Amino acid sequence: MLKKLMAEGVGTFWLVFGGCGSAIYAAGAPDVGIGWLGVALAFGLTVLTMAYAVGSISGGHFNPAVTLGLVVAGRHPAGELPAYWGAQLMGGILAAAALYAIASGQSGFEGVGGFASNGYGVLSPNGYGMTAALIIETLLTAVFLIIILGATSARAPAGFAPIAIGLGLTLIHLISIPVTNTSVNPARSTAVALFAQTDALGQLWLFWVAPLVGAVIGAVIWKIMSTED
Amino acid sequence: MLKKLMAEGVGTFWLVFGGCGSAIYAAGAPDVGIGWLGVALAFGLTVLTMAYAVGSISGGHFNPAVTLGLVVAGRHPAGELPAYWGAQLMGGILAAAALYAIASGQSGFEGVGGFASNGYGVLSPNGYGMTAALIIETLLTAVFLIIILGATSARAPAGFAPIAIGLGLTLIHLISIPVTNTSVNPARSTAVALFAQTDALGQLWLFWVAPLVGAVIGAVIWKIMSTED
Amino acid sequence: MLKKLMAEGVGTFWLVFGGCGSAIYAAGAPDVGIGWLGVALAFGLTVLTMAYAVGSISGGHFNPAVTLGLVVAGRHPAGELPAYWGAQLMGGILAAAALYAIASGQSGFEGVGGFASNGYGVLSPNGYGMTAALIIETLLTAVFLIIILGATSARAPAGFAPIAIGLGLTLIHLISIPVTNTSVNPARSTAVALFAQTDALGQLWLFWVAPLVGAVIGAVIWKIMSTED
Amino acid sequence: MLKKLMAEGVGTFWLVFGGCGSAIYAAGAPDVGIGWLGVALAFGLTVLTMAYAVGSISGGHFNPAVTLGLVVAGRHPAGELPAYWGAQLMGGILAAAALYAIASGQSGFEGVGGFASNGYGVLSPNGYGMTAALIIETLLTAVFLIIILGATSARAPAGFAPIAIGLGLTLIHLISIPVTNTSVNPARSTAVALFAQTDALGQLWLFWVAPLVGAVIGAVIWKIMSTED
Repeated sequence: MLKKLMAEGVGTFWLVFGGCGSAIYAAGAPDVGIGWLGVALAFGLTVLTMAYAVGSISGGHFNPAVTLGLVVAGRHPAGELPAYWGAQLMGGILAAAALYAIASGQSGFEGVGGFASNGYGVLSPNGYGMTAALIIETLLTAVFLIIILGATSARAPAGFAPIAIGLGLTLIHLISIPVTNTSVNPARSTAVALFAQTDALGQLWLFWVAPLVGAVIGAVIWKIMSTED
Repeated sequence: MLKKLMAEGVGTFWLVFGGCGSAIYAAGAPDVGIGWLGVALAFGLTVLTMAYAVGSISGGHFNPAVTLGLVVAGRHPAGELPAYWGAQLMGGILAAAALYAIASGQSGFEGVGGFASNGYGVLSPNGYGMTAALIIETLLTAVFLIIILGATSARAPAGFAPIAIGLGLTLIHLISIPVTNTSVNPARSTAVALFAQTDALGQLWLFWVAPLVGAVIGAVIWKIMSTED
Repeated sequence: MLKKLMAEGVGTFWLVFGGCGSAIYAAGAPDVGIGWLGVALAFGLTVLTMAYAVGSISGGHFNPAVTLGLVVAGRHPAGELPAYWGAQLMGGILAAAALYAIASGQSGFEGVGGFASNGYGVLSPNGYGMTAALIIETLLTAVFLIIILGATSARAPAGFAPIAIGLGLTLIHLISIPVTNTSVNPARSTAVALFAQTDALGQLWLFWVAPLVGAVIGAVIWKIMSTED
Repeated sequence: MLKKLMAEGVGTFWLVFGGCGSAIYAAGAPDVGIGWLGVALAFGLTVLTMAYAVGSISGGHFNPAVTLGLVVAGRHPAGELPAYWGAQLMGGILAAAALYAIASGQSGFEGVGGFASNGYGVLSPNGYGMTAALIIETLLTAVFLIIILGATSARAPAGFAPIAIGLGLTLIHLISIPVTNTSVNPARSTAVALFAQTDALGQLWLFWVAPLVGAVIGAVIWKIMSTED
């Protein structure tokens, strides 16, 4: 069990360090910056790489909503959920701390600002309101779970799931960075909100509620759709 | 059968929500916007992810032209075509409605404009005429079917088809977004045309005719090319 | 044999239509254009998709230099080389004609200009001379052949070769579009040079000589490196 | 053994030629330049392609830090390390020389400037200091080794490791190009530092120390995390 938690911790560390790190350091540079497309790719590749690296140890969730959805779908033991959530949060927060340490080493550093945190209303990258944020985070997490459950099902070709799931997370970011900066992952949202110089913590509830509700919906849809005839 | 239709509905929902959603929300933002390259990637990843997730349930068409081409090639029962088309249209239209609901939650919202719909002449992103649109949509759908039929044939390596087909759709968008905003999929075109504030509905016929004709041509070319010697 | 030639023709058609088409229609549009990165991805995906689709029929060369390299390495019968080259040229030229027909359908069309042709000196995108062009085209084709021969060797994991080869072609473009607009493929260079309004035809010799020499060098290096100890 | 060293030399040549070459020639061109995103993709694809091509010959390290990490993890014989390092350095330096030869063929050539070398402080692309550089290079190399060891472990799905490792290197670049121009590879840093017109050589120590220390840390973490319960 300790090895599983270590794997979840390392994996979620990587998700937050790589995804949010690319956003913080590299997205907005003039001319050569990677933009939202690069950030979307980075988030997806954190999951693709770690799912191949440690997926065989812990299952490779790296996301409290994913763990919940897998429990609901009967794919993961419910009793392990609290420890998984703890490891994911710990890994994510450590990553945010490392990102902060590096960011503060830039000449002329004056604080981290939004620090790639999630938000709606005034904290939405392009000014989308709370209802829009609720809808899109719930919907995208639901589809994310369908992709995860489908790509790891016994009928799907073996070995390809990390590609489908990782690039699925890339796709989710391509759609929704402008709306909420894309969460679908409460651990990722919590980790950077703790360091952000905005009111990200005050909006954090939405990035727990919507992904968790969405994960349950996705798991239920998958179960209806996949039962053998 | 109901599960198959549900899978086609979910998959086509995802194709329209992800592909058109990335175009509507994220393509044109200054500096960090994902551009046509990001949109092309998003469309392809909707198919890659859903083909791994639900391909084993329904075959993973998500496109009336693909269903027709598979029927012509003798890979799918003709009797299921009408129900597949219905499910694809329903999924696509639901996605367009969800995209509309979220878009209207942006501060300063003043309508959806073209809403990622397809078009030629004045509705072509870069001003290509009707003949150019007919040629390119027919041609690209034909090649799309050749890729689909080839990558899923018994002689192709197993498990890789969703990668070839999904990235094939990305490639198709890289070529033709400037010409028609890229359809090759009548369900995708219909779904957003219903919400567009332009004359997209008046041009919708082309995005049924050309993909369907192209799909038949592609299926025939494949059959000629693949028959064992 | 006819089916093989048809497959090579279709594949080379797709390489020129998709790769050069994305460059001609979509690369340079303001703000949302796909740039050289999108063109590099497009060229690679033409090979990735067609290698999965028709690779089992013809071997999936789509390039006279690749056919020559495979012959030198003892992987393809020398007797089929002339017919393969003919099919590749025919497919490529047909694609260039289709690209021309669509391009001329744009409002305000005033000719195709360089038409994504290859060149050095004044025809190099960023002004690289003839020697630089000779070196880079020879070198990149040699490495391309090493990737092809290695990824399709019996010791490499089965089924992944189209990914390695296709993305290898993407990588080659990421490096060398600024130098020569990237050939490594005489059929691709010939096809668009016939339509270009520049002196591309006068420089075409280099894009036959360098890729063919490079392919032989790559095949020889591979044979030295791979012989069992 | 000679064939192994030849494979490491060719592979590291390709890593430096492709990764640094795309940065030098193609990254900064106005409008159509590939930017940091394209460079990140190029570095990753050099490893993805060569791991499929020659991975079965030498193991496909192409990086002194990777060889050290694999030795520490017990996956590679320690006795081969010096020869591997030598081959990697030789391949990298040859690539830098080829890059220089081609660069000098550009009209108006006035020297290579930084030549895609790594640096901190005034040589950091975005002005990050020495401590930040030490942290991020150590941390990223550690995670790189975890990805490599995990993706090539017996429990990971066979054949996918080059995808996970190559795209892992892409991800590492997406995060850290702004900080140090991304090394995680002493051979890559050394090769271009020898030609750079800046004080890159004076800072080269960091790009040996941090990656080597990081590789050992990554190997140790992996061993703790992966031992069967």
